[in-house]
Amino acid sequence: MGAAVEDVKATVERIGRDAREASRPLATLSTEVKNRALLQMADGLEAGAPRLVEANARDLAEGKAQGLSPAMLDRLLLDQARIRAMARGLREVAALPDPVGEVTRMWHRPNGLWVGRMRIPLGVIGIIYESRPNVTADAAALCLKSGNAVILRGGSEALHSNLAIVAILQATLQKEGIPGAAIQAIPTRDRQAVVEMLQLEDSIDLVIPRGGEELIRFVARTSRVPVIKHYKGVCHVFVDDPADLAMAEEVCYNAKVQRPGVCNAMETLLVHEGVVPAFLPRIAERLRAAGVELRGCQRTRALVPWAKPASEEDWHAEYLDLILAVRVVASLDEAMAHIARYGSDHTESIITTSYDHAQRFLREVNSSTVLVNASTRFSDGYELGLGAEIGISTSKIHAFGPMGLEELTTTKFIIYGSGQTRS
Amino acid sequence: MGAAVEDVKATVERIGRDAREASRPLATLSTEVKNRALLQMADGLEAGAPRLVEANARDLAEGKAQGLSPAMLDRLLLDQARIRAMARGLREVAALPDPVGEVTRMWHRPNGLWVGRMRIPLGVIGIIYESRPNVTADAAALCLKSGNAVILRGGSEALHSNLAIVAILQATLQKEGIPGAAIQAIPTRDRQAVVEMLQLEDSIDLVIPRGGEELIRFVARTSRVPVIKHYKGVCHVFVDDPADLAMAEEVCYNAKVQRPGVCNAMETLLVHEGVVPAFLPRIAERLRAAGVELRGCQRTRALVPWAKPASEEDWHAEYLDLILAVRVVASLDEAMAHIARYGSDHTESIITTSYDHAQRFLREVNSSTVLVNASTRFSDGYELGLGAEIGISTSKIHAFGPMGLEELTTTKFIIYGSGQTRS
Repeated sequence: MGAAVEDVKATVERIGRDAREASRPLATLSTEVKNRALLQMADGLEAGAPRLVEANARDLAEGKAQGLSPAMLDRLLLDQARIRAMARGLREVAALPDPVGEVTRMWHRPNGLWVGRMRIPLGVIGIIYESRPNVTADAAALCLKSGNAVILRGGSEALHSNLAIVAILQATLQKEGIPGAAIQAIPTRDRQAVVEMLQLEDSIDLVIPRGGEELIRFVARTSRVPVIKHYKGVCHVFVDDPADLAMAEEVCYNAKVQRPGVCNAMETLLVHEGVVPAFLPRIAERLRAAGVELRGCQRTRALVPWAKPASEEDWHAEYLDLILAVRVVASLDEAMAHIARYGSDHTESIITTSYDHAQRFLREVNSSTVLVNASTRFSDGYELGLGAEIGISTSKIHAFGPMGLEELTTTKFIIYGSGQTRS
Repeated sequence: MGAAVEDVKATVERIGRDAREASRPLATLSTEVKNRALLQMADGLEAGAPRLVEANARDLAEGKAQGLSPAMLDRLLLDQARIRAMARGLREVAALPDPVGEVTRMWHRPNGLWVGRMRIPLGVIGIIYESRPNVTADAAALCLKSGNAVILRGGSEALHSNLAIVAILQATLQKEGIPGAAIQAIPTRDRQAVVEMLQLEDSIDLVIPRGGEELIRFVARTSRVPVIKHYKGVCHVFVDDPADLAMAEEVCYNAKVQRPGVCNAMETLLVHEGVVPAFLPRIAERLRAAGVELRGCQRTRALVPWAKPASEEDWHAEYLDLILAVRVVASLDEAMAHIARYGSDHTESIITTSYDHAQRFLREVNSSTVLVNASTRFSDGYELGLGAEIGISTSKIHAFGPMGLEELTTTKFIIYGSGQTRS
């Protein structure tokens, strides 16, 4: 066992060194070369579908033998349709603007220096994720497009699939004269590999964990490399007085029911007492018809007797399910105080016709995404127009909210002088 | 001892909770209120000068008794001139634009959503620094202006001075209706307080250590809170062929001699072999006259026999002194390879008249500040026009290079909708 761990450590360290080495030429690759590689990778995945399906069959067989649930086996599955979707994803990344080299601003100094800020890649990104193998291709594409090397550590149950995908991507890199170490996967199921990866502060610039709260907490606790993460999304919709109640009903229904298992679904509904009689029984009936269980405060239950009583934990809960906490509040301020106290800094929406309340909510609620008169479900890189989503951050350092290609870059100062010295 | 440590832990945790609590109202303070507070703090420091000098005298006496060096005692000293300079610094921060609330971009989505990114404060900043008491006022002012609460942990030898400064600042906060916990200092010399502070991941959003490499490494190693740091500045000037050699001489002299003890001073000079005979002996003589010791490669020493031989360590060295490593290189590529291998990602300058080389250097060297035809000494928040400098980062996450007020903020997504739901 000791020897095996030593091997894991040495392997992961070598992967880290190779990634760091590859990151230098990657940083200045032309957009044209990167896009051509992405398009060829898409073709390669489609052409290699039989190999991918075969590797995936091994994962599925081992997963079945280990008693994975049907839901987990389904997430693991790669079929023709899913391989085509992966390829389409790569082509979409090729079509996005290249963030690298963009000069975001430029200004003159009194001494004649001309100062600018230019986007550059972060360097080496580590992605630690769970079962879905499509993340492998997605994350690799976004890192390549933004000029970063990537080290991928997927779910152990998807190891064969992930390695097969990476082998296809790497073959294309080499054809394009890009170092193969630009895209690497950790080739072992040993969990120690994650621990070793998280120690590589000199080789990895940023780690993005994607998965359940347990995985993310483990990564955050263990890592010496900076981590961008979100633990959970306790998203609120506040139906104000005055509000367009028909709109409120549509938005609340959408935010809860359209896809309840994701982090930007509504988990708590706050209703201004002024609209409670006109609004609450109607939305409650509609949600009940969709199979939603309500857990309400006392005033909610007075009007919706079938709602269960909400406990303190319900205000903190990310159900990821057809369950909704409901609270009646007396004012915008009480709604914002509830969000500040129980929220997760993820996404909150106000439904209002008041100009003043809309502006106050947008200004004063400091969650990563704050909406007026729209569903919380729009808190998503694609929906917001970032073109892609590599993850989402609910901590404020480096990125806050959905992260696209720009969030995989930083800026350096570039300065055009004409002999200036400092006195 | 056990009980004392318990007290330190409880004290630091309470400070953290109070700072977090204060950060909420701070985030939406108007620019007017913040500026008025800053101006009154400046007045307060000047009016309170006798109290500050008295507190400082206690620090100086204790420092002398503990055998602090004259240089350290000088750094510790607060006199009328330095108190006036601190007050002037606060007035300058009041005059800077407020980054909070700025909408950096706004765009429409096809479904009619109007999406923007708005700057908001990070929340709570921890500053850990060494002897100079003026950092206390500076850092507090920058955090207040950017809407952040701050927890200050200065050098233990400056404790009385720092607490006296913070007492004056807090008195002003309260007069302006701002929570006093917006600006707090750790009221003990116990080093355990730093360790406890660095555990407060729920109360502190960012820690900025300022000081020697040892302090910074300790903070980076210990912290569970994100840390923005730079360890050292191994800054390079590359004198290209072709170059304006008179300009090269002025810039190199300035970069090495004007203030050798700072992180943006030149530590290694790279000279293109094509200009060596015309350039190297002249700059060497001029540097010798200024008392600079040269440590050169073989080709350097062939022309400058009094130069000491450079060892491998010299290429890694941050001398912070009148010492300079000198290497002759055969090309721009060799210069950039040297910088990639030995540099610290801080600041590099090329002296050239070649358009192509200038553009390649700016594009391909990914240090935090890259200059053409100007002294490395301009890598500084004030000199680059940020208006202030809270620190400097040589890691790429969140900020890279000198950090001003904007780097104490993040952006949230704000979205104006009209009833949009997701399908």
